[in-house]
Amino acid sequence: MAVRASAEKRDRQPSLDALSGLVAADLARVNELVLARMQSPVALIPQLAGHIIAAGGKRLRPMLTLATARLCGYRGERHLALAAAVEFIHTATLLHDDVVDTSNLRRGLATANAVWGNKPSVLVGDFLFSRAFQLMVEDGSIKVLDILSRAAATIAEGEVMQLVTSNDIATTEAQYLEVINAKTAALFAAASRIGAVLGERKESEEKALDFYGRNLGIAFQLVDDMLDYSARQAELGKAVGDDFRDGKITLPVVLALRAADSDERQFWRRTLEDEDQRDGDLEQAIALMQRHGTLTATLERARFYAETAKGALGIFHDGPERRALDEVIDFCLERGY
Amino acid sequence: MAVRASAEKRDRQPSLDALSGLVAADLARVNELVLARMQSPVALIPQLAGHIIAAGGKRLRPMLTLATARLCGYRGERHLALAAAVEFIHTATLLHDDVVDTSNLRRGLATANAVWGNKPSVLVGDFLFSRAFQLMVEDGSIKVLDILSRAAATIAEGEVMQLVTSNDIATTEAQYLEVINAKTAALFAAASRIGAVLGERKESEEKALDFYGRNLGIAFQLVDDMLDYSARQAELGKAVGDDFRDGKITLPVVLALRAADSDERQFWRRTLEDEDQRDGDLEQAIALMQRHGTLTATLERARFYAETAKGALGIFHDGPERRALDEVIDFCLERGY
Repeated sequence: MAVRASAEKRDRQPSLDALSGLVAADLARVNELVLARMQSPVALIPQLAGHIIAAGGKRLRPMLTLATARLCGYRGERHLALAAAVEFIHTATLLHDDVVDTSNLRRGLATANAVWGNKPSVLVGDFLFSRAFQLMVEDGSIKVLDILSRAAATIAEGEVMQLVTSNDIATTEAQYLEVINAKTAALFAAASRIGAVLGERKESEEKALDFYGRNLGIAFQLVDDMLDYSARQAELGKAVGDDFRDGKITLPVVLALRAADSDERQFWRRTLEDEDQRDGDLEQAIALMQRHGTLTATLERARFYAETAKGALGIFHDGPERRALDEVIDFCLERGY
Repeated sequence: MAVRASAEKRDRQPSLDALSGLVAADLARVNELVLARMQSPVALIPQLAGHIIAAGGKRLRPMLTLATARLCGYRGERHLALAAAVEFIHTATLLHDDVVDTSNLRRGLATANAVWGNKPSVLVGDFLFSRAFQLMVEDGSIKVLDILSRAAATIAEGEVMQLVTSNDIATTEAQYLEVINAKTAALFAAASRIGAVLGERKESEEKALDFYGRNLGIAFQLVDDMLDYSARQAELGKAVGDDFRDGKITLPVVLALRAADSDERQFWRRTLEDEDQRDGDLEQAIALMQRHGTLTATLERARFYAETAKGALGIFHDGPERRALDEVIDFCLERGY
């Protein structure tokens, strides 16, 4: 409730505008760096990497590094290369996530995988991942390398966990949270934490920014997983039902299963576990979620993590950076309405 | 010639025994470390990683790190974790190399990919790759991180290059050499160079070991590519013709194309470029290679790189380490006879 109230106080829809405005000059240089460092004499590498990087996305993760560095009073230029490293890790993850996936669309563009095939996507992902480490090595901070190599291992663990829980309708809410904590929130946390490291802030502030990023990341993923079954997503021109078709067990499904009678349970078993999907099944899945209020419940959980993320910013001085980082939380949440 | 002569002087077949004996105690600890650090609460990770790591191979790359460290007078324990990191990078490469590959056998065991599918192989590879960096970060040397992150990026470039030249019968010997330099020799070079870094040797010795590893790696891959068309390989119970079936343009093919008349050129175009392969084609490919002596010519090139690798060891004091590293070269070469 407090989240919505604070959003209303601003008297406009929360957006990424404040954050984007604040880091615009830095982000332009990060984009240049990303373009420069994805180059290779092997032409297919910049072609394929350019495809996914141009597809763009919001550059949310590198912006977190840029903004938290400023929040922590850092005035140098190291945050630029490290933000580029964060974006490369994210891009490598996207490329590898597309492997053997039935979903052929990401952000409305054909995935690199659908255009070039599995293997080039894997290998170019490896290249970008290596480049991320080269950028960190050039920066020279073992502490930053520690944070991001740990995050990278955690992301891989999360992706494997997600694969293991796929098509498994016995997946619990706790397991689901573990998956999104690892596959999504770990990089949000690391990207935010780096700001405090660059600002040479004390351990408690490092941890606060890690906590901010982690809770923001969980809220972000909860909303994402909710939107995959939402009319709102369809309004935005994005595909609905990708997770359903992939047999991913996200929270709206976990909660629907918890409330299911035996007929409903049979429906979920057929569609998600046995992967036997027919016309009208997605609509039926959404109807069951609405009957049991699981999309709303997912959003309620997101709101809780959003509140927690907001609280983590409390120890920092008020100012444009803190306000921008605060509004990111509202933005991630309000996408859901 | 000198290579064979020196092998004969030993009055026995060159083997990895001297090297293995020298680093046996260290290698046992590296194997323990590899087993310990591939663990994860996500059970599928050690299962799948264990499958490919147990399949084993010769542990040639980590042994190079162990032996060069000893050669350079290093007496500490850092080489253990770094050798494990080298093995993890190699294993990650193998896992990713198996993606969308028609060959379902590696070292006579089913590939992880064939057992578990593409996606787990990719993600577990990512995990091992991240673990490699965590091991290096714990070691704390930016110099070592620089060497291995650079090698990792080069390997990925080499793998993409190999993909680009696949099925392309216009591939030149220079392009082929670029591919194997990047996909294979870069890691041999880095693994060997680390020894000099640990021993705090001067730049010239670092470069000499890099050069040793690089030339050894090229010789190793040349022999490997020759063996894929060799009766010797069949005698050893290994599959012949994997590269042919995959449409890989290796040196025996490049040289056969160079000598081909128009009928032969048409054969190569049909089988490798158009991927239209029939019964007896592999035998015909081997017959053409024998007619033009391209397997022997490939081995001759390998011998040249082997000589070069031997020369690089010349600046180091004679002793069991140098002799073992020298015999590795003979071993890699003699596999071809």
